[in-house]
Amino acid sequence: MGANIFGTVFQIITFGESHGPAMGVVVEGCPAGVSFSWDLIREKMDRRRPGRFPWMSSRKEPDIPQLLSGVFEGRTLGTPLALLIKNKDFRPEDYHLIKKNPRPGHADDVWKEKFDHVDPRGGGRASGRETAGRVLGGAVAQMFLKELYGQLDIRAFPIQVGHFIRKDFTAFSERQWFGEQSKEVEEFLVQKKARGLSYGGTIRVEVDKPPVGLGQPVFHKLKSDLASAFMSIGACYEVSLGDQYFSSSVEGDKVKSIHRNINLEEGSRLHGKQDHSVYGGIRGGISTGEKIIFHLKFKPPASVLDVAKQGRHDPCIVPRAAVVAESMAWLVIADHVLWSRQDRLS
Amino acid sequence: MGANIFGTVFQIITFGESHGPAMGVVVEGCPAGVSFSWDLIREKMDRRRPGRFPWMSSRKEPDIPQLLSGVFEGRTLGTPLALLIKNKDFRPEDYHLIKKNPRPGHADDVWKEKFDHVDPRGGGRASGRETAGRVLGGAVAQMFLKELYGQLDIRAFPIQVGHFIRKDFTAFSERQWFGEQSKEVEEFLVQKKARGLSYGGTIRVEVDKPPVGLGQPVFHKLKSDLASAFMSIGACYEVSLGDQYFSSSVEGDKVKSIHRNINLEEGSRLHGKQDHSVYGGIRGGISTGEKIIFHLKFKPPASVLDVAKQGRHDPCIVPRAAVVAESMAWLVIADHVLWSRQDRLS
Amino acid sequence: MGANIFGTVFQIITFGESHGPAMGVVVEGCPAGVSFSWDLIREKMDRRRPGRFPWMSSRKEPDIPQLLSGVFEGRTLGTPLALLIKNKDFRPEDYHLIKKNPRPGHADDVWKEKFDHVDPRGGGRASGRETAGRVLGGAVAQMFLKELYGQLDIRAFPIQVGHFIRKDFTAFSERQWFGEQSKEVEEFLVQKKARGLSYGGTIRVEVDKPPVGLGQPVFHKLKSDLASAFMSIGACYEVSLGDQYFSSSVEGDKVKSIHRNINLEEGSRLHGKQDHSVYGGIRGGISTGEKIIFHLKFKPPASVLDVAKQGRHDPCIVPRAAVVAESMAWLVIADHVLWSRQDRLS
Amino acid sequence: MGANIFGTVFQIITFGESHGPAMGVVVEGCPAGVSFSWDLIREKMDRRRPGRFPWMSSRKEPDIPQLLSGVFEGRTLGTPLALLIKNKDFRPEDYHLIKKNPRPGHADDVWKEKFDHVDPRGGGRASGRETAGRVLGGAVAQMFLKELYGQLDIRAFPIQVGHFIRKDFTAFSERQWFGEQSKEVEEFLVQKKARGLSYGGTIRVEVDKPPVGLGQPVFHKLKSDLASAFMSIGACYEVSLGDQYFSSSVEGDKVKSIHRNINLEEGSRLHGKQDHSVYGGIRGGISTGEKIIFHLKFKPPASVLDVAKQGRHDPCIVPRAAVVAESMAWLVIADHVLWSRQDRLS
Repeated sequence: MGANIFGTVFQIITFGESHGPAMGVVVEGCPAGVSFSWDLIREKMDRRRPGRFPWMSSRKEPDIPQLLSGVFEGRTLGTPLALLIKNKDFRPEDYHLIKKNPRPGHADDVWKEKFDHVDPRGGGRASGRETAGRVLGGAVAQMFLKELYGQLDIRAFPIQVGHFIRKDFTAFSERQWFGEQSKEVEEFLVQKKARGLSYGGTIRVEVDKPPVGLGQPVFHKLKSDLASAFMSIGACYEVSLGDQYFSSSVEGDKVKSIHRNINLEEGSRLHGKQDHSVYGGIRGGISTGEKIIFHLKFKPPASVLDVAKQGRHDPCIVPRAAVVAESMAWLVIADHVLWSRQDRLS
Repeated sequence: MGANIFGTVFQIITFGESHGPAMGVVVEGCPAGVSFSWDLIREKMDRRRPGRFPWMSSRKEPDIPQLLSGVFEGRTLGTPLALLIKNKDFRPEDYHLIKKNPRPGHADDVWKEKFDHVDPRGGGRASGRETAGRVLGGAVAQMFLKELYGQLDIRAFPIQVGHFIRKDFTAFSERQWFGEQSKEVEEFLVQKKARGLSYGGTIRVEVDKPPVGLGQPVFHKLKSDLASAFMSIGACYEVSLGDQYFSSSVEGDKVKSIHRNINLEEGSRLHGKQDHSVYGGIRGGISTGEKIIFHLKFKPPASVLDVAKQGRHDPCIVPRAAVVAESMAWLVIADHVLWSRQDRLS
Repeated sequence: MGANIFGTVFQIITFGESHGPAMGVVVEGCPAGVSFSWDLIREKMDRRRPGRFPWMSSRKEPDIPQLLSGVFEGRTLGTPLALLIKNKDFRPEDYHLIKKNPRPGHADDVWKEKFDHVDPRGGGRASGRETAGRVLGGAVAQMFLKELYGQLDIRAFPIQVGHFIRKDFTAFSERQWFGEQSKEVEEFLVQKKARGLSYGGTIRVEVDKPPVGLGQPVFHKLKSDLASAFMSIGACYEVSLGDQYFSSSVEGDKVKSIHRNINLEEGSRLHGKQDHSVYGGIRGGISTGEKIIFHLKFKPPASVLDVAKQGRHDPCIVPRAAVVAESMAWLVIADHVLWSRQDRLS
Repeated sequence: MGANIFGTVFQIITFGESHGPAMGVVVEGCPAGVSFSWDLIREKMDRRRPGRFPWMSSRKEPDIPQLLSGVFEGRTLGTPLALLIKNKDFRPEDYHLIKKNPRPGHADDVWKEKFDHVDPRGGGRASGRETAGRVLGGAVAQMFLKELYGQLDIRAFPIQVGHFIRKDFTAFSERQWFGEQSKEVEEFLVQKKARGLSYGGTIRVEVDKPPVGLGQPVFHKLKSDLASAFMSIGACYEVSLGDQYFSSSVEGDKVKSIHRNINLEEGSRLHGKQDHSVYGGIRGGISTGEKIIFHLKFKPPASVLDVAKQGRHDPCIVPRAAVVAESMAWLVIADHVLWSRQDRLS
């Protein structure tokens, strides 16, 4: 069944509790012959790292993974890759209160209801720290895809935090995580953090130059598997294919024009016209080869004031969630690239 | 792998091309002892039926399924249930043009790219007719759940079509498919249909009185599996958990109040308060026992004028998509009810 | 989970109770572009047919399947193929006793213990009739493989029935199902049938000219999946890889010579020598390209005298089991041919 | 797909190359609340340990695993358990020859053919060392089952090595691994080892007091899943259900009497009599509650004389294979105990 297994052909299984000995991932189904890149691993883990920005949680684990299997002389063997991250910044004493008072917005209470026996330290398995394994797995998916499709690229980045909205997506760098407004947003978050406040936001995911024909036509449509992947990220509560975000949900004046478009009022029938703003690079569940666009909305992290006072409160998770979303997208694309090898007789 | 298989424990596999001999479903993993209800099957198939409203496609197949296996003396055997619907209204001549001109908004071209050999008649397997099998499977899931949880109920209904928005969800009947505005919307659609126009819309899904503890914590979160299920419906391009729909995307004045809430401005920290508008009955991926709410957005059906002229154009699919969405929700809930039997030692 | 699903990439799901309306199979994961052969379907169903020999059960259903989906203009579409066989020879009255007296050697009693609610008519789903779906699925697997590998062939045939042993495997025809001794064995079975006696036997399966590299190295070794496939046939109680059958289990004088060989006594170390009698075409779980050999042992069918008196007793199932075993082997090989497409980067 | 994943509900994934940094297993699907026993882990790893007997390989790694996740305060959390064994006795220099000369009886050459890029050090992933993860996983399965079914027990032990045959199964202790003949067999193996010779053998597996109703009726019959499990052990080439071993394959005089029995000659129809020697505790694929019996045959390990000279040659793997077989049986039974929770409505 695999509650902790993601993917069909290219699969990962993640394990580890936030305050247990280690977190990790096993990558299963990666073909033999892929060059393993430590640079990519380091880059991803750095982007995911807490404490990267001044307003982030001060929990600053280095998170340098060990590679335990699956690679020999720098290339994958076609066997499972196990990657391990030891938990070093382990302070059980901070969390003794949590047992008595389930944190708001967290799953402590329902988790208890479900399993009866739970690890209350830092959320245990429900901690966002679980996503470290996903990021490692996504990096392996990326190594695989980059060798086959040099031009394929995936980027996920915040485009809304609180009332800030980013509209220019052309330039992209990690330091400029919110484009030209990065500094402004950071100052805002530092201020709000002091008051124990939290902010949700929106992430835009772009898959550039994907192969045509990814996705299976009925239940494993590419949009279906991507939606499942993104919704498996803790705070994500909405996924949307295409460019609707800028029409229906943010700026009132654009809503109408898009409605005109997708509603085909004014006789502009869809003859010969494929509206990318709606289908977002996926038609009939299958990639068309054009850019795939998704928008994901995240709720603000719920937090406890006592924790916030100690500076370990994370007022906004979208930058880190973006790395996870990007990783999930790499995993889904890798999965379907392999799956599509089965489409035809030869 | 199972491109046409949905579910983990309670599974369906659907088969059939729109203009092939038959459509069908095999339900795998339904426990023994469930009472089989022909009434429910008929009710569902009637709600899914084309031609139910004046503005719908005139393709009026009765769609009375045959039950081929899995039931003896009115109760399930724990073996696969196969349900079959013969295709009677089969007019291959209407579709000869399609081979030359791929329909806009459809997957004809990418499908061809993927499989090379395709059935172009009425979309073949990509036809919305494929969902008949899902509705039958969902009905079996409902039979199973109703025996275990008498109060559990799932309803999916349109709340937006074009510029019409429905806000009162209390009364619900099939004839009143859009509440008090039903007649008004129908008249609107009849008029627009004559011009070959199409309309998208929004469906609200409510799971009433679900058991606590459904969903697996990492990759098979309940919200993740529901999102995947809904996104597997052809025209669905957005899924959203909770009541955000009425805040962020429709009415400007509510956006602010919700932002206040979820952003925790004004010091109203989440202590002790679980904001149902955001988490929608699912926290940490697991059902809390409260009402689960999803909103699904659908793009307007893309159609060909020639077909529209013959009255077989469907200007709005949301009423029928609602039945499919409801069926998918029944399937996901049944799946996780069974899965949760594995949570604990005993 | 899929109790009724077989295979990983190339999958079948079978359904149907012996005395329900129909038996069937859905083939999932067959690539697009495979030529569908009705001749092959007919040939297989004829070989599987009861009543083919004078000593067989008189239940003589024609078993002509209908193809409901997945094929257009004679070639597969990459969508599920559903094949259906209606149950015509349906005599519920014969089976009313069974409810009271569970048949010996059958699963009636444990099945009842497991599911509580069972279909007692002719074994219901536990009937050997369930294998009709497997044979149809295996035929589709064969169609697929024959197009890719013209020389690949699979044959399964009885080599032991009661005290008869067949040693010459060169000539093979359906009429000569037991080689030169066919007539002799048939006469023996006709005589024994009259006394209500049953006979088990041994089937030899040969996979000729398989591709190199089939099988996954750990849990889905080719021998492991083949063993599982063969053991899923009702009466099969032993599976053996290689040519051990003729050494250790039948003729005393050969046991020693093989022991000498596999035990490496007398200094004949295995240096450079790969003993085909032991590894049977599979090393490390992976096909070597040489002939794959399996021997399967079947217990005699347990039967009820009352039924035997009516001529519907089957004193020996090995000829029909051979067709099923052959079908299972086609399915496993097709599955691993597709799976092996994932072995390498490109 | 999961080439390295075993099981359906209770699952393990193993990873690690023989001479890579570590071997390990992730146990997925173990319910919450199971008491974790380090004593059991130690006992199993000790039984699996090389160098336990004088004639065994001198490679004597302690193999003390680390538990990385899934357990809190001594009980399982319902999350994945990761268990890790570091590879300490790592001598790459011994294996430099292997690259040039594939070892006889091993999979070095076909593995190379399949994956192109391989780890030649000590067999890499194809090494018997991979089974360490299975033994750890099997121990967790045993912990789970022992809490639910106190009387359930599984034992696997050698009953044939070369020409030695063990017939008394009543007394069982690890030191007495071959019953009263243990010393005699050990002396024989020490002598043969000096000559670089190897011996296969037979293992008997007994599942004592299993619950009734385990196994799914068609493709996941209990015998089918057990056969697959046993055949996934490297050197296993035959699996046999029931007590046939002592009839047909070893002692000539018993063959006849059993044939009489299972062939129902002499008019002793099976009415009311269930012949345990044939069905071995499983009828119709489902456990009857009686003792389940399997016999597994193993080929002798193929070895290289140079290695043998250094004392690292293993002339007989059956004692260690018995521990692995036992572990696989625990895994299959745990899997089906959980699966059977889905049989009925409630």
